[in-house]
Amino acid sequence: MDLEQLKIDVDYMVQALKEAQTAADEDEIPIGCIIVAEEGGKKRGKSSVSKNIIARAHNLTEMLKDPTAHAEMQAITAATAHIGGKYLGQCTLYVTVEPCPMCAAALNWVQVKRVVYGCKDPKRGSSMFSPSLYHPKTEVVGGVLEKECAAMISDFFKKKRVK
Amino acid sequence: MDLEQLKIDVDYMVQALKEAQTAADEDEIPIGCIIVAEEGGKKRGKSSVSKNIIARAHNLTEMLKDPTAHAEMQAITAATAHIGGKYLGQCTLYVTVEPCPMCAAALNWVQVKRVVYGCKDPKRGSSMFSPSLYHPKTEVVGGVLEKECAAMISDFFKKKRVK
Repeated sequence: MDLEQLKIDVDYMVQALKEAQTAADEDEIPIGCIIVAEEGGKKRGKSSVSKNIIARAHNLTEMLKDPTAHAEMQAITAATAHIGGKYLGQCTLYVTVEPCPMCAAALNWVQVKRVVYGCKDPKRGSSMFSPSLYHPKTEVVGGVLEKECAAMISDFFKKKRVK
Repeated sequence: MDLEQLKIDVDYMVQALKEAQTAADEDEIPIGCIIVAEEGGKKRGKSSVSKNIIARAHNLTEMLKDPTAHAEMQAITAATAHIGGKYLGQCTLYVTVEPCPMCAAALNWVQVKRVVYGCKDPKRGSSMFSPSLYHPKTEVVGGVLEKECAAMISDFFKKKRVK
């Protein structure tokens, strides 16, 4: 087990959960997402790689009345705009819930390096489709802060029912 | 064969081809799309249904440097904004090339009534995936002005190679 990578993934998933919480506060289904880029540079003459969050987004389907306004779609558009290019081959996308087929296929187009998600979506998750919707080069990791990401969704709907 | 429906579909596909031509003129891969809504109303006291083009779009992946900026995605967002709602259950989307998985899944989210496309996309077409990416209620019709839609793409790449 790569504990260093796990710590990195957990830290960034907490950031994605913060975005999900913002969505919940706005009465949107609470799914949050961030994109982290590995950016090369030089520090005191030595080359180094730093990781930077280049996009943060949450679900906006209610506000925009557009069911395609998923956190991932907005984060992808923000990240490509930030990079000024069409590909996210040096980026990891963190999202609290497994991407749907639309988002997985969008992540294929941008050839994202890694996708890290929290809980599975048993109804609309992209993993139910074959062949894989992701790019062959993309590494997909599920189950990071799974319980917490699932609780974010179930707590939201519990509160909805009480209202 | 429903010749009346065929005539309607061909007429609207010509409109989608016009959008594709605009894309070609802008040096974008020439794929065009329109969305037609069936809108109810009253004329001289009688209820009637009229068909109106509520969105026109073409591929903008180069201009926006965003490989998710497909004609269909933009048309969907424009159409939901026009309607002020999240569903396109009374709409037909016409597109010159078979939708990719991202666009098919987006059309699932908006529960579009019909999808009419021109030529198949043997590399990235959504029909290669199972189970179907479309909504169970969506009717999908392919091959309308197939040769013309395919020629729009092949002519574009022929010119590119000559340059």
